[in-house]
Amino acid sequence: MSRNIAVIGSGLIGRAWAIVFARAGCNVRMWDPEPEVRRQLIAQLTETCRISGDDLSCLSHVTVCEGIEDAIEGAEWVQESGPEKIDVKRALFARLDALAPPGTILASSSSALVASLLAGDLAGRGRILVAHPVNPPHLVPVVELCPSFDTRADVMDRAEDLMRAVAQVPVRMTREIDGFILNRLQAVVLAEALSLIEQGIVTPQGLDDTICHGLGRRWTLMGPMATINLNAPGGIADYLARYGPTMARLSSAAARGEAFTPQAAAILVAALPGPEQVPALSRARDLRLAALSRHLKQPMDET
Amino acid sequence: MSRNIAVIGSGLIGRAWAIVFARAGCNVRMWDPEPEVRRQLIAQLTETCRISGDDLSCLSHVTVCEGIEDAIEGAEWVQESGPEKIDVKRALFARLDALAPPGTILASSSSALVASLLAGDLAGRGRILVAHPVNPPHLVPVVELCPSFDTRADVMDRAEDLMRAVAQVPVRMTREIDGFILNRLQAVVLAEALSLIEQGIVTPQGLDDTICHGLGRRWTLMGPMATINLNAPGGIADYLARYGPTMARLSSAAARGEAFTPQAAAILVAALPGPEQVPALSRARDLRLAALSRHLKQPMDET
Repeated sequence: MSRNIAVIGSGLIGRAWAIVFARAGCNVRMWDPEPEVRRQLIAQLTETCRISGDDLSCLSHVTVCEGIEDAIEGAEWVQESGPEKIDVKRALFARLDALAPPGTILASSSSALVASLLAGDLAGRGRILVAHPVNPPHLVPVVELCPSFDTRADVMDRAEDLMRAVAQVPVRMTREIDGFILNRLQAVVLAEALSLIEQGIVTPQGLDDTICHGLGRRWTLMGPMATINLNAPGGIADYLARYGPTMARLSSAAARGEAFTPQAAAILVAALPGPEQVPALSRARDLRLAALSRHLKQPMDET
Repeated sequence: MSRNIAVIGSGLIGRAWAIVFARAGCNVRMWDPEPEVRRQLIAQLTETCRISGDDLSCLSHVTVCEGIEDAIEGAEWVQESGPEKIDVKRALFARLDALAPPGTILASSSSALVASLLAGDLAGRGRILVAHPVNPPHLVPVVELCPSFDTRADVMDRAEDLMRAVAQVPVRMTREIDGFILNRLQAVVLAEALSLIEQGIVTPQGLDDTICHGLGRRWTLMGPMATINLNAPGGIADYLARYGPTMARLSSAAARGEAFTPQAAAILVAALPGPEQVPALSRARDLRLAALSRHLKQPMDET
């Protein structure tokens, strides 16, 4: 594949995107407004590949550009990965829409800003969407594709095709919603988790163990719908008939936004490793995610 | 280890428990009220071990008993795994409490009935608790240990020790709560998932992909609290300061029990493999869970 991709903004997310595209054989042209970030870019990409086990030769497909115009020239896709600030992103999309030829798709990595906010009434709003990855994108393949009401269907089709072509897993949404899918699901788990911890019913470690050695173990092999389809002899209809009322009762009783209290935060801060350990723990996480990713790609011996 | 364990009830969960205890070297004595179930038990355990990759020699530690008295004789722990019916379980616990010497702990596999309901005012209510596993227990290690208000602390200590000794991951709760921890977390995810699917914002497959190739990928390596601790440079305090308000807003807007509608169920039934495929898919899931379990036990090469 020799497709041209521009990655605009070269922080943690932009760099991970560069590896996603480069290892799939795309020509990746990167730009960041900070000269110092640009200068260190190849060294940082090299280090990221070392941890993820990606072949360093993929970096031969990456070019660091001195200007945004240079980066987007000839690109079929621009992956905007700037700071999560509405004013910065709106200005960036205005500039990108003015510079890029009509066939170029403009996608944002935003985790919280919806496409209609980013696109406003720009002439090219029909080619703007959110392509929200999960941290870190080169090791966790899902990408939420969220259109605004103006995003064209053919743009969504191309977005889905490109994500599959670079071995990500696109989740195509039909319309804009606050938080997209992933963070809506994460939010309800966090709210109930914080509430149970603050009530003292379970420790932070116990809560994490429940997911890590329980629900998460299944959910890395199949999603929650496929999971419950196997949790009753008659499949999902049987499951919902047997356990739906219980699950409805539990979800109605669950905590919501009020669970995000300073008290819960204080318990968590005391229980978890401190900020000084975040870089080393993140590196260890990425090593394990890379190993897990290789494991999950192995064909199953169905003996 | 030569510890004596009784498993009462020999369905799917009871059989998986037998393998958990037997492969750790415990003497396992099993009983089921149905003669036909007892007769087929060793053949079924053999098949389960074949799928999970457990050494068949562990089954030499398993004895199928003709009477409940015989099964619990000399047991330090009884794992009750009968049908999830309150009357059946209450009668069973009354019988177990009358038969078992005072030092024997009586634990229920119940996923929904709390220990105080099972124990009532039995003389031995101090030694009764719920030890709720996840399906299938021999491949998903978490066990929720939930006391009633009467369960003694030394019983909880012994329960925790035993679960660790047989390589399960105990989550010790401090008090009874509807749904324990795991199903409370699962319930909020299911409610929001059903709502997003019924609204047509995402397909069942897209919803499953979001967890399976996104949140679940991280959550099988670390729980949600450890995950967010690494999602902001300053750790969890920084995360909650930056994203807490967004997560609070999303969780407050999330669906609850009203999401369990016939319409949502109909969409799911149409989208997922039918009941006739449940046995083969469950077998494939167990093969993959066993392979994942072996992968997760490998020491990481921290290069």
